[in-house]
Amino acid sequence: MELLSSNKSFGGWHQRYKHHSAVLNCEMVFAVYLPPQVEQGQRLPVLYWLSGLTCTDENFMQKAGAQRWAAELGLILVAPDTSPRGPGVPSDPEGAWDFGLGAGFYLNATQQPWAKHYQMHDYVVHELPALIEAKVPVTDQRGISGHSMGGHGALVCALRNPGRYQSVSAFSPISHPSDCPWGEKAFSRYLGEDRACWNDWDASLLLAKASERLPILVDQGEQDGFMQDQLKPEVLEAAAKAIDYPLTLRLQPGYDHSYYFVASFIEEHLRYHAQALQQQQP
Amino acid sequence: MELLSSNKSFGGWHQRYKHHSAVLNCEMVFAVYLPPQVEQGQRLPVLYWLSGLTCTDENFMQKAGAQRWAAELGLILVAPDTSPRGPGVPSDPEGAWDFGLGAGFYLNATQQPWAKHYQMHDYVVHELPALIEAKVPVTDQRGISGHSMGGHGALVCALRNPGRYQSVSAFSPISHPSDCPWGEKAFSRYLGEDRACWNDWDASLLLAKASERLPILVDQGEQDGFMQDQLKPEVLEAAAKAIDYPLTLRLQPGYDHSYYFVASFIEEHLRYHAQALQQQQP
Repeated sequence: MELLSSNKSFGGWHQRYKHHSAVLNCEMVFAVYLPPQVEQGQRLPVLYWLSGLTCTDENFMQKAGAQRWAAELGLILVAPDTSPRGPGVPSDPEGAWDFGLGAGFYLNATQQPWAKHYQMHDYVVHELPALIEAKVPVTDQRGISGHSMGGHGALVCALRNPGRYQSVSAFSPISHPSDCPWGEKAFSRYLGEDRACWNDWDASLLLAKASERLPILVDQGEQDGFMQDQLKPEVLEAAAKAIDYPLTLRLQPGYDHSYYFVASFIEEHLRYHAQALQQQQP
Repeated sequence: MELLSSNKSFGGWHQRYKHHSAVLNCEMVFAVYLPPQVEQGQRLPVLYWLSGLTCTDENFMQKAGAQRWAAELGLILVAPDTSPRGPGVPSDPEGAWDFGLGAGFYLNATQQPWAKHYQMHDYVVHELPALIEAKVPVTDQRGISGHSMGGHGALVCALRNPGRYQSVSAFSPISHPSDCPWGEKAFSRYLGEDRACWNDWDASLLLAKASERLPILVDQGEQDGFMQDQLKPEVLEAAAKAIDYPLTLRLQPGYDHSYYFVASFIEEHLRYHAQALQQQQP
């Protein structure tokens, strides 16, 4: 992997790397935050952050203010891109922002021309962690979180892979993508028109049949203009209630869908992850 | 003034407003952060933040993570734009990013065609505070800070206007603009070729003849690629030493010129301002 840039941040380092992804068949860029404890020789747990529609690795690192708390808590942060990129990677034929580039939906596409590159689930869950674990001093304790499409991604990655993550949370996740405009558009193209195939990528449906009981923390702004039509946290909540799943859904009065909302609660999420990840360390 | 947007942030509100500026002869946008104490009916001191080259009101509010501390400390933040904008406002003939739009240098231009609009000093020191003081529950305690070109602006505004600010700080300021490429380009156009007229807009030269002794806090990243040729903190430091001026210049090892640097130390700056502004409240 090739180091693109390095910025000192809260006593640690924010770095961007480029590497070839065999899973995605393209060059990918990701960002990592290494807290100051890394220079002191410590191995630290890692939190993967999945961003929302239109984002790259940069939005979270620039806008969430997470480094302040990662430095204090001793958490490594990794922020991948939101889709495959580059020459030959197809995107939305109409150039829309809610499908294709910047909108990989953290799934494994089965339909062409998407399937050749759009395998973001396997990239985020397997290929990128293998690279991180080979090159960065992380422990085997992994958390995952994200915002909007990335909140969906975090929940789905955790629910599909019991035992792989020791903590999970989400901000404003697309909670029931098989029944909302963003999700239906993406799933029908990436996965095809057979809706039965969509169930394995829908957090509310995955949760209903979950074998694990990894606690989930979700924050959702009550003034989020996407909540009613696209995010549908009430479907996730109903699924959890039905099987007594440990979901904490917090509706935050006045907050919207922006990174001003994420920044306001990132400290609490990072403390939540750090507590779960560090209590399991040797 | 017209409200453009409002985002809840750390229990308070980040808002953007548009208004007509008589001083700048154009429509201007600025951002304000109102901490939660405002909704509880309190009047609070205000910190003006001046951004650097190419910025608008948005960079600081999105990237510095200042709201977290402003909410805790009870500071109102105001972030103006970095130049006049809009139809009829001239910019750099070659489209460069270091002069004209986004690069007003917080001075009052005397040369045409710039003088008609480029009066950022009077806008930042007089017109905008008058508007803020009429519409926002601020006390009469004002602090000022900024980054790079905005660090220059903060120092110059404070040094030119004794008694107007009760606290001042800067990140990576252009400390001696009359003798660096960015400053010479801007000053020769905005102020004309007579270098004697430049002295009144140069923090190091203003400090040398300061009548007031308002303490100045400056943070400067040691790995800042602009330090040697453009920022020249050593000139400001020498001017302060010569007259025993209370300047605290901190060279921060490893840090660069980015907002990752600003974010890393914004808490300390806000605590510095809050202490100075609040100890003078009735």
